[in-house]
Amino acid sequence: MKNLNKFFNAKSIAVIGVSRESEKVGHVIFKNLIDSGYEGNLYPITPNAHEILGHRCYGNVTEVKGKIELAVIAISSKIILKVIDDCGKKKIKNLVIITAGFGEIGNTKLEEELKKKIEKYNMQIIGPNCLGVLETKNNIDCLFLPNYRMQRPKQGGISFVTQSGAVGSAILDHAVKQGLRFAKFVSYGNALNIDESDLIEYLGQDKDTKVICVYVEGVKNGKKFLDVCRKVSRKKPIIAIKGGVTEAGAKATLSHTGSLAGSAAVFYGVCEQANVISAKSLEEMFDFARMFDRYIIPKGNRIQVVTNGGGYGVLAVDAIHNHGLKLADMRKKSVKDLKKEFADYVVVKNPIDLTGDASTEGFEIAIKKCLSDSNIDIVIAITLLQTPMITPKIVDVLTKLNNTRKKPIIVVTTGSRFVETIKQSLEENKVPCFTFPENAVNAIKQLVLYAKRRR
Amino acid sequence: MKNLNKFFNAKSIAVIGVSRESEKVGHVIFKNLIDSGYEGNLYPITPNAHEILGHRCYGNVTEVKGKIELAVIAISSKIILKVIDDCGKKKIKNLVIITAGFGEIGNTKLEEELKKKIEKYNMQIIGPNCLGVLETKNNIDCLFLPNYRMQRPKQGGISFVTQSGAVGSAILDHAVKQGLRFAKFVSYGNALNIDESDLIEYLGQDKDTKVICVYVEGVKNGKKFLDVCRKVSRKKPIIAIKGGVTEAGAKATLSHTGSLAGSAAVFYGVCEQANVISAKSLEEMFDFARMFDRYIIPKGNRIQVVTNGGGYGVLAVDAIHNHGLKLADMRKKSVKDLKKEFADYVVVKNPIDLTGDASTEGFEIAIKKCLSDSNIDIVIAITLLQTPMITPKIVDVLTKLNNTRKKPIIVVTTGSRFVETIKQSLEENKVPCFTFPENAVNAIKQLVLYAKRRR
Repeated sequence: MKNLNKFFNAKSIAVIGVSRESEKVGHVIFKNLIDSGYEGNLYPITPNAHEILGHRCYGNVTEVKGKIELAVIAISSKIILKVIDDCGKKKIKNLVIITAGFGEIGNTKLEEELKKKIEKYNMQIIGPNCLGVLETKNNIDCLFLPNYRMQRPKQGGISFVTQSGAVGSAILDHAVKQGLRFAKFVSYGNALNIDESDLIEYLGQDKDTKVICVYVEGVKNGKKFLDVCRKVSRKKPIIAIKGGVTEAGAKATLSHTGSLAGSAAVFYGVCEQANVISAKSLEEMFDFARMFDRYIIPKGNRIQVVTNGGGYGVLAVDAIHNHGLKLADMRKKSVKDLKKEFADYVVVKNPIDLTGDASTEGFEIAIKKCLSDSNIDIVIAITLLQTPMITPKIVDVLTKLNNTRKKPIIVVTTGSRFVETIKQSLEENKVPCFTFPENAVNAIKQLVLYAKRRR
Repeated sequence: MKNLNKFFNAKSIAVIGVSRESEKVGHVIFKNLIDSGYEGNLYPITPNAHEILGHRCYGNVTEVKGKIELAVIAISSKIILKVIDDCGKKKIKNLVIITAGFGEIGNTKLEEELKKKIEKYNMQIIGPNCLGVLETKNNIDCLFLPNYRMQRPKQGGISFVTQSGAVGSAILDHAVKQGLRFAKFVSYGNALNIDESDLIEYLGQDKDTKVICVYVEGVKNGKKFLDVCRKVSRKKPIIAIKGGVTEAGAKATLSHTGSLAGSAAVFYGVCEQANVISAKSLEEMFDFARMFDRYIIPKGNRIQVVTNGGGYGVLAVDAIHNHGLKLADMRKKSVKDLKKEFADYVVVKNPIDLTGDASTEGFEIAIKKCLSDSNIDIVIAITLLQTPMITPKIVDVLTKLNNTRKKPIIVVTTGSRFVETIKQSLEENKVPCFTFPENAVNAIKQLVLYAKRRR
């Protein structure tokens, strides 16, 4: 296994090619490292300035006195070989090469020359033609996108590896909006030296990573991918999505990254063999990730739905059925107990329909009973918060019940401002929340399958 | 066809059962009518107060001197028959009955008695056991949900008819957050007198409604539904989703609304015969609605993708292929012209991949060319806004191109704050925006099918 630690915990970073102009790539990266609160030594490298953003500049890495554990390269491809030589002299072993203009535009000759140099100096590189690396614990943010354009994630358990930089940044930004939290983000571009399998293998043993998401267009070494995923998926879930699934998509991939996409059937076949969860869409990938960042392993697949919206209950039941999961059959004693607690019009079946009059306390009573009922493995709590009887105290109640960690409690809630506030608090307390019953059940299915494989 | 005008443009409204207590249903409704800016005459009816929220109260509708065009009833089911008699005396012909406690909880006797009285007085009613009506042009907002819990939509072309009140309110709230705009919203509950078919028929001739969305659990009269939808779908798109699709779901429906769900196969068969677009999920329903609220009819199904994110281009191509749509084959002249305009590394195929360096001007040049190329029917513009080269001017550019109304331009853009701002401006200018390529293409498919049927 490659030791990629320095890409995520380097104590000193040189950014090579830091312009004075604030919109230039190197400048943006350097500024992001400062803004993110990175506490190591930072060295801006440029022959054109003495000081940038309060930091002394160096004309060349060789002028830096201290050790450089990581270099981020954002210069033109025309001078890349020279810059690598400089890094070689300075004994820099880990490099992120943002620079584009290699194999992806047909310049395979330059890519080959770069490769040889890398091998000569025994370097490890991420890139070229990539977006960079983001690490939330050590605040290493060398993405070349300004903060106001792309929000940064809070620290969490999802690590995301992406071949495409633009896809990566757009969906990272989207995921942050949805409240997802990340450990590491890596855009690996042309994978000249470190590929998706190396990264997955590394993340497999990374204790901050609870779930690994992967966006690939083409896997260069299928055997390696299979072996690594098979090994890692025993430890934590891997979710993969492949661009270029259809023949037409594969052709587009060829234009995009210059790599052969390979057959989708083969890719998804490999995923199945390696216990990799394959997502059908980007949205689905993050629904699954949301679940696995906060999951409690269920004992089985029997689901009880508790709802204050009859219609959503119906949709949940439909989804449970469509996904081949089971509706739990509550014990008679539980039914009897609950009937005593509620008004006549409350339906104590599956779903338990507390109706639009449901209160926070009503949810507490019903879910508590589900947690102690041995016929139930998983609880879906549909809390539609538009009706005034449910108070924000629902956050405390659901958190407390979830913290017993007896069974997974999955919340479904839909809406705008008020709902978003409640949802955010719940997710901060590690209660997984979904917008629609269909999404929730789809993700539960993956959880059940994963739990089954783990047993 | 039933004349339902007064439910949406009544010049005088009585709210029967307005409590002093601010969280009670009648009070919330009355306050919402005031807050929404309703300009007609408002009469709060209650024997327990002289004045509420600055309005004089009446003990009974019969005490009101002026005409009452619409009554909203929010009293206990125990006194409903008496209140209907009062409304009969006052010659009120249109009523929204919010009150629950009828067939849905097994009280069919009371429901029958209510029905007889309604018929005796020749009244039209929406409900009982419903959430009420929202109309955005005349500001008739008699939903019993407080504003802080559920955001109200801006005026637009979507009308939404829902059997389930809780589903209706939650997804209306969600849709508002997504920037969707509505003409009318009706929760019709037990459909004692006015059912989904009556509402669809009415909305079919409503000039403010561009697209009709329907959430049903059980259709009481299938023949009527088929006839009405067949007629209306010739004029405007109808999108339907059914709760209780599976057998298990149907059972849950029985508990929920007391109505027989009916076979899903039959329902969707009817939809197909009647040219009703059936959505597989709530999210899909609103993706389709988003498209049809702003659509330009395409001449065919040949799609050209223009992107600044290669990976998203690949995903779009995959989706186009999977949905049986066609990748456009640009004219040679167009390819030649575009190649002159762009750097070597820009890929002028399908997708046109402008790469991460793409500027606003680059998009303008490429899309303009697509609009004039006779081999292209529809343009997907994937604008990932995380990269700094695209400026907010993209809003003006895309709006101007869309306003030529030559071909549908569908925007795909993903992200958080910055993206949301741009997206909102685009949608206000009637450019449809989607978050992921898959959603966009899925909605485009419906647009293409609809256009084909219209031809």
